[in-house]
Formats: sequence, C-alpha cells, structure tokens
Amino acid sequence: MSCPFCDIVSGQLPASVVATTDRVLAFSDIHPVNPGHVLVVPAAHATGLEDLDPDVGAEMFRVAHRVAGALRRTDLRCEGVNLFLSDGEAAFQEVFHVHLHVIPRYRGDRFRLSSGRSRKPTARADLDDVAERIRERLGS
Amino acid sequence: MSCPFCDIVSGQLPASVVATTDRVLAFSDIHPVNPGHVLVVPAAHATGLEDLDPDVGAEMFRVAHRVAGALRRTDLRCEGVNLFLSDGEAAFQEVFHVHLHVIPRYRGDRFRLSSGRSRKPTARADLDDVAERIRERLGS
Repeated sequence: MSCPFCDIVSGQLPASVVATTDRVLAFSDIHPVNPGHVLVVPAAHATGLEDLDPDVGAEMFRVAHRVAGALRRTDLRCEGVNLFLSDGEAAFQEVFHVHLHVIPRYRGDRFRLSSGRSRKPTARADLDDVAERIRERLGS
Repeated sequence: MSCPFCDIVSGQLPASVVATTDRVLAFSDIHPVNPGHVLVVPAAHATGLEDLDPDVGAEMFRVAHRVAGALRRTDLRCEGVNLFLSDGEAAFQEVFHVHLHVIPRYRGDRFRLSSGRSRKPTARADLDDVAERIRERLGS
C-alpha cells in the first residue's frame, strides 16, 4: 500500500520542506489550520507511536520545537502554538505515517477544542489508582 | 507568583505520579478528558516552548511516548492516544508551566476537535512561500 508521507520523503510527491535531519522531515501541511501549519514526520515509515523509535520521536519533538520558535519570529500570524499528535483512528489519525502537527495559533482563528473535561476535580484516590495502573505497565 | 506545577514538583501539592526522571515529571491530570490522562512537565519551571531547554523538551516527549505505550497495555479504555501541547493563551494554555498532555482515546468519547482546516488543498506556491519564511527564521 502506498503511503503519501513515504512518497514525500522519497521525493515522489512534492512537498514544501521546512527542515530536514537524517531521520526527520518537516513540511507544510497541505490543508493548514492556519498558514504556517507544519507536519514533522520520521523519514523511516512508522504507523504510530507503537512502532516509532523513541530516539526518532525525541528528534521529531526537537524539530517541532525549533519550528515553533521560528514561526513566532516570522511575520505569519502566530500568537501561540499547538503541538498535536494523533495516534490511532480513535484519536483522529487520518494518515497512517506518524506525524506531529505544529500549528500557529491566534486569537479568533477557527481552531476549536471541546475536551469533555470534568469541571469537578477527580478524587485523589481515583487518580492514584489510575497512576498506579499506568506505572505497572511502564516497565515492559 | 505561585505555580501549581512547581508546587507539585517540590512536593508542596499532592500528585498521582506516573513517571519521573531527573528533569521530567509525569502525573495524572486532575481534570481528565478520559481516565488515564497524564501531564508531562519539566521539573525546572519553563512557561512555554520559548524558555524550555530543547533537551528537556525531547525528554518530555520520550516520557510521553513511554506513557502512551503503557496506557495501551493497561485495562483502561485506550484505543488511541493524543499528545497535545498548548503554548500560549491563544493556543489554549491555561497553566503557565509548559506541559505535554497524554490523552487516552476511545471511540465515542467526548473529545472533539474542530480545526477549521480547508477542504481545498492550499496552492503549492503559497505552501512554498510559507515554508521559506519559516526556514529563514530557523537559523537563529
């Protein structure tokens, strides 16, 4: 099956490249939330976080961090930045080559988020329980 | 001015800790989107991406990546994961100690995102122009 981001990495599809390292490529999103919206992807195909090399993930973040700083120094509208990664269809992933969004934001733009977060804080005992269940699985 | 996440790092406020390294702390979000929602923060105060050490940022991503994997191995509902970082008020930042959200997701949960993305792809010339403006600012 063809992967559009692999085709960008190999040069078979065009891209407006913002930054490259040995293992990471950053380019303009073709459907930007706002002008300057960039995607950071690993050069080697990884579907999601589960098959992404942790070193490459860390490098993706480093590149995204640099791009965020650069965005604030351009004359593009950028009063804030969101970094966003969707791992899995249930998390809104649409292209199955893992990618980190770098989204310049400004007051009054059209990006909206409705998180369904509880107004009431969760009880400490429940938070402790959940934290313990995650900790137990961190080792493997 | 007091900072709630600094108070968590110092132990003055309680937290349900998921993971710690020398420079990074991960703990349960007290207003979770879904059970298992974790925040990853630098131990040393940084307001946002601009004053965050790039090495510490990379480590935050490494920890978030590990937590995401652990979440998928728990019995918590987790069919997908979002990583999300809000840098600046215009990007929905509410606590001004930079933090990376790790959010377990499942079909039918209440998290919604309305990005305002264009359906029509942006013209290549415009994407190239934007990419060049960002590249010019990456050096500094």
